[in-house]
Amino acid sequence: MRGAVIYGKGDVRFDEREAPRITQPTDAIVRTSATCVCGSDLWSYRGINPITQPTPFGHEYCGIVQEVGRDVTSIKPGQFVIGSFFASDNTCPHCRAGYQSACQHRELVGGAQAPFLRVPLADGTLVATPEVPPDDMIPSLLAASDVLGTGWFAADAASVKPGKTVVVVGDGAVGLLAILSATQMGAERIIAMSRHDVRQKLARDFGATDVVTERGDEGVARIKELTNGIGADSVLECVGTETSLMQAIRCARPGGYVSYVGVPHGVTLKADDLFRTHVHLHGGPAPVRRYLPHLIDLIWNRKIEPGKVFDLSLPLAQVEEGYRAMDERRAIKTLLRP
Amino acid sequence: MRGAVIYGKGDVRFDEREAPRITQPTDAIVRTSATCVCGSDLWSYRGINPITQPTPFGHEYCGIVQEVGRDVTSIKPGQFVIGSFFASDNTCPHCRAGYQSACQHRELVGGAQAPFLRVPLADGTLVATPEVPPDDMIPSLLAASDVLGTGWFAADAASVKPGKTVVVVGDGAVGLLAILSATQMGAERIIAMSRHDVRQKLARDFGATDVVTERGDEGVARIKELTNGIGADSVLECVGTETSLMQAIRCARPGGYVSYVGVPHGVTLKADDLFRTHVHLHGGPAPVRRYLPHLIDLIWNRKIEPGKVFDLSLPLAQVEEGYRAMDERRAIKTLLRP
Repeated sequence: MRGAVIYGKGDVRFDEREAPRITQPTDAIVRTSATCVCGSDLWSYRGINPITQPTPFGHEYCGIVQEVGRDVTSIKPGQFVIGSFFASDNTCPHCRAGYQSACQHRELVGGAQAPFLRVPLADGTLVATPEVPPDDMIPSLLAASDVLGTGWFAADAASVKPGKTVVVVGDGAVGLLAILSATQMGAERIIAMSRHDVRQKLARDFGATDVVTERGDEGVARIKELTNGIGADSVLECVGTETSLMQAIRCARPGGYVSYVGVPHGVTLKADDLFRTHVHLHGGPAPVRRYLPHLIDLIWNRKIEPGKVFDLSLPLAQVEEGYRAMDERRAIKTLLRP
Repeated sequence: MRGAVIYGKGDVRFDEREAPRITQPTDAIVRTSATCVCGSDLWSYRGINPITQPTPFGHEYCGIVQEVGRDVTSIKPGQFVIGSFFASDNTCPHCRAGYQSACQHRELVGGAQAPFLRVPLADGTLVATPEVPPDDMIPSLLAASDVLGTGWFAADAASVKPGKTVVVVGDGAVGLLAILSATQMGAERIIAMSRHDVRQKLARDFGATDVVTERGDEGVARIKELTNGIGADSVLECVGTETSLMQAIRCARPGGYVSYVGVPHGVTLKADDLFRTHVHLHGGPAPVRRYLPHLIDLIWNRKIEPGKVFDLSLPLAQVEEGYRAMDERRAIKTLLRP
């Protein structure tokens, strides 16, 4: 089969790869219906995370179960399934506490940008839809695999609740779906920090009530102005830089909640300053598995359409262009069809 | 009158000071029944926080209201009252959210190691006991002014609840009272990290079920061992150094809660590492005022005796020795009687 392989900075190829097969009795093989490019993949594509050898790429997937190992009991061939980038047994103490991305037996799922994918710990990891979905629903179900689950975690980790004022820092696909999530959780006011027309429009589609284009000190001042000098109840940091995290912390009210879900890169926090802000801070690699059943239900019943974040859809063979478009911010998020 | 004045590193004197008087219509003057030395005062005493001019010292107090300004309505002369180190109006949005130590009109209360003290925003700041308390209750009521309120916040901010496993890092007075607080909140298991006999004993008196003497990597390994490799649900950091905060974070389970209530001094956190731990982090200057009515009630009804942390009681005139004893760790906490 052919799939995406990253060779180094700016070098992703549609390349011959070995087809996956069952290696553990708890594995499943999924024939991917769709896969996509993640903002976090860009860290490698841009050479910030170094690539030491050609590596199968991608970690977002949904599709039809092709084959299962002999110990798999709840997942069956023919089912349409969605899973997260961390395979998890869903039974260990960390999973039971809702942190499947910290599962004691977790494994990274890699190489999803391909027609077939091996998913470890299939019973714990994969969630099936009631039936094979119609084609137009696939982008939204694919979004649940990571970007929606991560946005949802951002909102949940920042304690978004009915009536609250929410700020979302970052207008990438995660930030946009964090807005959708905050809307679903009943936030009264959702302020998107964005300076891109197309993204602002989608932010409003997903429920943003206000848009702030300023950043840094000016952005913080604008948020304070919009909240009577108090600050926001919940601030969702969906970027992963020091600037964006500090901006998020400073936008929150004392005792407010700040979540951070973008993998931080070289970010240091001065605890002395953090102490004085009185914020609650919570984040990490999103435990997407915790939310999958609920998210699938919302999508299945057409309550949400997170698939709208895909503004570029390409055949998998054009994966190179998919990365370039996101790197150059021509696309919010690229869907790839094997 | 005479009271404590700090002149510089290691130099606290019992010195002539101007008696306080009402300067704002919302002020009260309190005749202090007892005051004490705070662990945070030692940062100045040890020269880590520089002293630029002779400064009246101390911020913990309880006593009898002597006089009130013309706008004070709920507090009356003759009442026995306790207040926190931050005066707060208790009506602004931050106060109403429970963060009185971030009150929009907050003022630091200073110079409490003296027979008389001016307390700003008296109606918002001071809480009266039902009657003038018996003498033996005064140490406990004094503790509510800061050290108990801070320990209670540590437990609350780390989400201590019935049945939970709690670790307390730091065996100073705040750490010890954090143990007492966790006991009151129904924690099933409370592990004190302490290597001092006297403090271990008090920790057990206050409800600690286990004592761990190891620190750093060894301490973390021991906590993991005691919790079946999982980590603690709640970790209360009551010191304020980078070592202790990192130790606390590493003792928590993924998705666990870490509070930090000791003023951090030059502490930096790597968000990249923090991200991977999945902990909830919350802290700051304790909003003691939020808890005062409940704490006073517990003390008044003899449910708790936080005053046990005072293992040295001196006349205020011997304030110098009070600081020395704490600096040399001969005393856990020094009570001073004007």
